Amino acid sequence: MATKPVAIIVGVGAGTGASVARRFAKEYSVAVIARNPENYDPLVAEINSSGGQAFGVSADVTDSNAWQSAFNQIFKHFKDAPLAAAVFNPGGGVTWKPFLEITEDEFAVGLNSQATGAFNFAKSTLPLLLKSTNLQHPPTLIFTGATASVRGSANFAAFAAGKFALRALAQSLAREFGPQGVHVAHIVVDGVIDIPRTKEWKNEHPDAKLDPAAIADTYWHLHTQPRTTFGFELDLRPYIEKW
Amino acid sequence: MATKPVAIIVGVGAGTGASVARRFAKEYSVAVIARNPENYDPLVAEINSSGGQAFGVSADVTDSNAWQSAFNQIFKHFKDAPLAAAVFNPGGGVTWKPFLEITEDEFAVGLNSQATGAFNFAKSTLPLLLKSTNLQHPPTLIFTGATASVRGSANFAAFAAGKFALRALAQSLAREFGPQGVHVAHIVVDGVIDIPRTKEWKNEHPDAKLDPAAIADTYWHLHTQPRTTFGFELDLRPYIEKW
Amino acid sequence: MATKPVAIIVGVGAGTGASVARRFAKEYSVAVIARNPENYDPLVAEINSSGGQAFGVSADVTDSNAWQSAFNQIFKHFKDAPLAAAVFNPGGGVTWKPFLEITEDEFAVGLNSQATGAFNFAKSTLPLLLKSTNLQHPPTLIFTGATASVRGSANFAAFAAGKFALRALAQSLAREFGPQGVHVAHIVVDGVIDIPRTKEWKNEHPDAKLDPAAIADTYWHLHTQPRTTFGFELDLRPYIEKW
Amino acid sequence: MATKPVAIIVGVGAGTGASVARRFAKEYSVAVIARNPENYDPLVAEINSSGGQAFGVSADVTDSNAWQSAFNQIFKHFKDAPLAAAVFNPGGGVTWKPFLEITEDEFAVGLNSQATGAFNFAKSTLPLLLKSTNLQHPPTLIFTGATASVRGSANFAAFAAGKFALRALAQSLAREFGPQGVHVAHIVVDGVIDIPRTKEWKNEHPDAKLDPAAIADTYWHLHTQPRTTFGFELDLRPYIEKW
Repeated sequence: MATKPVAIIVGVGAGTGASVARRFAKEYSVAVIARNPENYDPLVAEINSSGGQAFGVSADVTDSNAWQSAFNQIFKHFKDAPLAAAVFNPGGGVTWKPFLEITEDEFAVGLNSQATGAFNFAKSTLPLLLKSTNLQHPPTLIFTGATASVRGSANFAAFAAGKFALRALAQSLAREFGPQGVHVAHIVVDGVIDIPRTKEWKNEHPDAKLDPAAIADTYWHLHTQPRTTFGFELDLRPYIEKW
Repeated sequence: MATKPVAIIVGVGAGTGASVARRFAKEYSVAVIARNPENYDPLVAEINSSGGQAFGVSADVTDSNAWQSAFNQIFKHFKDAPLAAAVFNPGGGVTWKPFLEITEDEFAVGLNSQATGAFNFAKSTLPLLLKSTNLQHPPTLIFTGATASVRGSANFAAFAAGKFALRALAQSLAREFGPQGVHVAHIVVDGVIDIPRTKEWKNEHPDAKLDPAAIADTYWHLHTQPRTTFGFELDLRPYIEKW
Repeated sequence: MATKPVAIIVGVGAGTGASVARRFAKEYSVAVIARNPENYDPLVAEINSSGGQAFGVSADVTDSNAWQSAFNQIFKHFKDAPLAAAVFNPGGGVTWKPFLEITEDEFAVGLNSQATGAFNFAKSTLPLLLKSTNLQHPPTLIFTGATASVRGSANFAAFAAGKFALRALAQSLAREFGPQGVHVAHIVVDGVIDIPRTKEWKNEHPDAKLDPAAIADTYWHLHTQPRTTFGFELDLRPYIEKW
Repeated sequence: MATKPVAIIVGVGAGTGASVARRFAKEYSVAVIARNPENYDPLVAEINSSGGQAFGVSADVTDSNAWQSAFNQIFKHFKDAPLAAAVFNPGGGVTWKPFLEITEDEFAVGLNSQATGAFNFAKSTLPLLLKSTNLQHPPTLIFTGATASVRGSANFAAFAAGKFALRALAQSLAREFGPQGVHVAHIVVDGVIDIPRTKEWKNEHPDAKLDPAAIADTYWHLHTQPRTTFGFELDLRPYIEKW
């Protein structure tokens, strides 16, 4: 029996990360990473009980040693199966406050949760992705962006600095690794995602929030694109969103 | 028996337009428009002989009267079936020459083939798309862009003027009609498409050209997005493309 | 006595165009063009009575023959003096209305007032600018943009189509003619300009509108940049403007 | 006698920083900061010996304590004179190598030299700039960008991450502090600057490199813009530069 390829998703909570894991688990084994096991334990149980194969590991991807150790555990667990897809989706780091009130630590968290975390994630996943060009779909590395990836709004300096840096990294990697057959993409999620925590927000239009399952379908679609036709950047938003 | 919804595609030749028609014909009746019937006759025959329903009309979409007459023929043929999707994909107007050698007529062709054509197309399709919000997928209006949609290169003034104007129109329509439930999207096709006419180009990498069938899969994917999660702009290019 | 070089400004009313003419008239002879002589007659009188040299001509720059005739008059008047700077600044074409209410003619006016007008203007001025690389400052061609040059807002389809097309043209010309020593620039004027017609608008902050004289200082600054250090695009807005 | 306002420039070597200091020293006292006193000592001597007032301090702006201490020295030296302009121009952090060879430290240097340094710089200068809205020109905070501010090229991941983050910060600060009367701007310097270290590069066109004195003239021009007419972003490049 052939070994199932692996998809790895960093940043799994109630929204995009969990839905991406569910979607990719239809075809692959999935490894899910969050700082807090509470964020992935129910998801791992759900996937494993419905015929999929999931494995959760707790790690802070901004800490390169901790992350590398988690990464090693994953491939020990999955017996060095090939890596088909890697999704970087950590949510942390959103600070909304006047600039002069942002502390050094808050700025560092905003910057590092995105930029340094993505650097560590790409450093460990790319060598494996480069070996997976013979799988059914081109190996894929997807970064989750936000409105703050393309717009530095007032009071969002820390988060926007991290998200802009993440987009720079995504562009640079797409240009370097695309020609080597790895599909690098960046998805700008522009709007509120429909998760338990946001249930009370903006309820004038009941369907005015991004559906994480629909977001995940788009991640999967990008993954299935052949290397002749790679999409790099797509912006997703609810129909009533102002932009 | 329920009436099959219609997809309408303007600009059908050997590449994107024909592949989009084939893809949408799996679910819908398709109307295909080109100036020259030679461009769609074989496609219409192919779709109709393989169980689909296609109808071709010859028209120049930059001529509002000629276009409106063609449009009326289509819905007479399809007995006022609902319009599910409209794709604007005319290829004309690429002029590559030093600016001082571009004639008034060439500039007008570059500008109008894209901007005026798209205006006429949107004026006739949007009223029908607005009535189709109860179909399985949100009604969708997709415009085909190019590298010249986001970059005015030397010697491409006429084509870039048209493609920039088209992108402006797409953004404006997305912001106005998105909240009314119509999905407006703009796809930047960045690279050479693999069609008979380009067979001889850039053959160092045999798979270095965009696959029109893969492009069409992405058009279809955008069409299936729910209105909670509309994608507006995606750029597609071959893995080895410099950008 | 050396012949004074000429600056030519199309689109002279109460705002940017008139201020640019006043600023450039400190160094050059200026030719000012508008459809309606009422728009430039007081300005021409003002400049001529204060020691400058101004000449006004009435023409519609979207009509290539009418424009060429006006252009010939200017250089007959100024005895074939060298052309140092050309500024394209027509204001027409702003239509703000729901897309389905925009008429064919309104769309054509929005598109042509910017794109076709700029094409005609560039076609006649560039051959002269190319001969002026020996003047004190590099010969300069400046296009006036707007918010609608970089954003297609709802209800602005016609104006945005024209302004996007104009920006495409500016980019293409900068890339083609920069290496030949002509400075091509595009200024995005983002906000309300302080002119008589706008006196009643937004008066919460008395200085919340763009000062046309300050805009003109920036046009002049760009003109004085050496060819080692050409600025292409700058956005100008009042300090309280939301963007 | 009125106290001369101060301009402060971080990142002073042979290029932009030194020229900006010379230009602003015509009107203001200038404080220049670099890690290595060798980078500013000759400049300080030059300005002081030609009638200006310059003061140099050695500091690493990415170290908030060291930076704050340097900052305090400056205003002790200049007896709490008002701060008229602050320019962030550190050059460090350019790493050009394949992504998988970039070390954690190199990535951190690229990111922090720009993003964290700019955060520290803005945190200390903005409270003083906010008090200077009564000076002749609006108080100004200018950040120096690069091609890598708007494009993540292959092999430039570390530098582009820092420069994108810096641009996010600049946008966010412009939107927050503009309405409070502080002019925040971002200049994209796109090309090779003409300094001793680059003398041997690209010498096909003898004037194909950015002139730091011309760059400085543009910084000064932006500083003199009134608050009705703030420029946010300008790109500067040599006339023959490909872009």
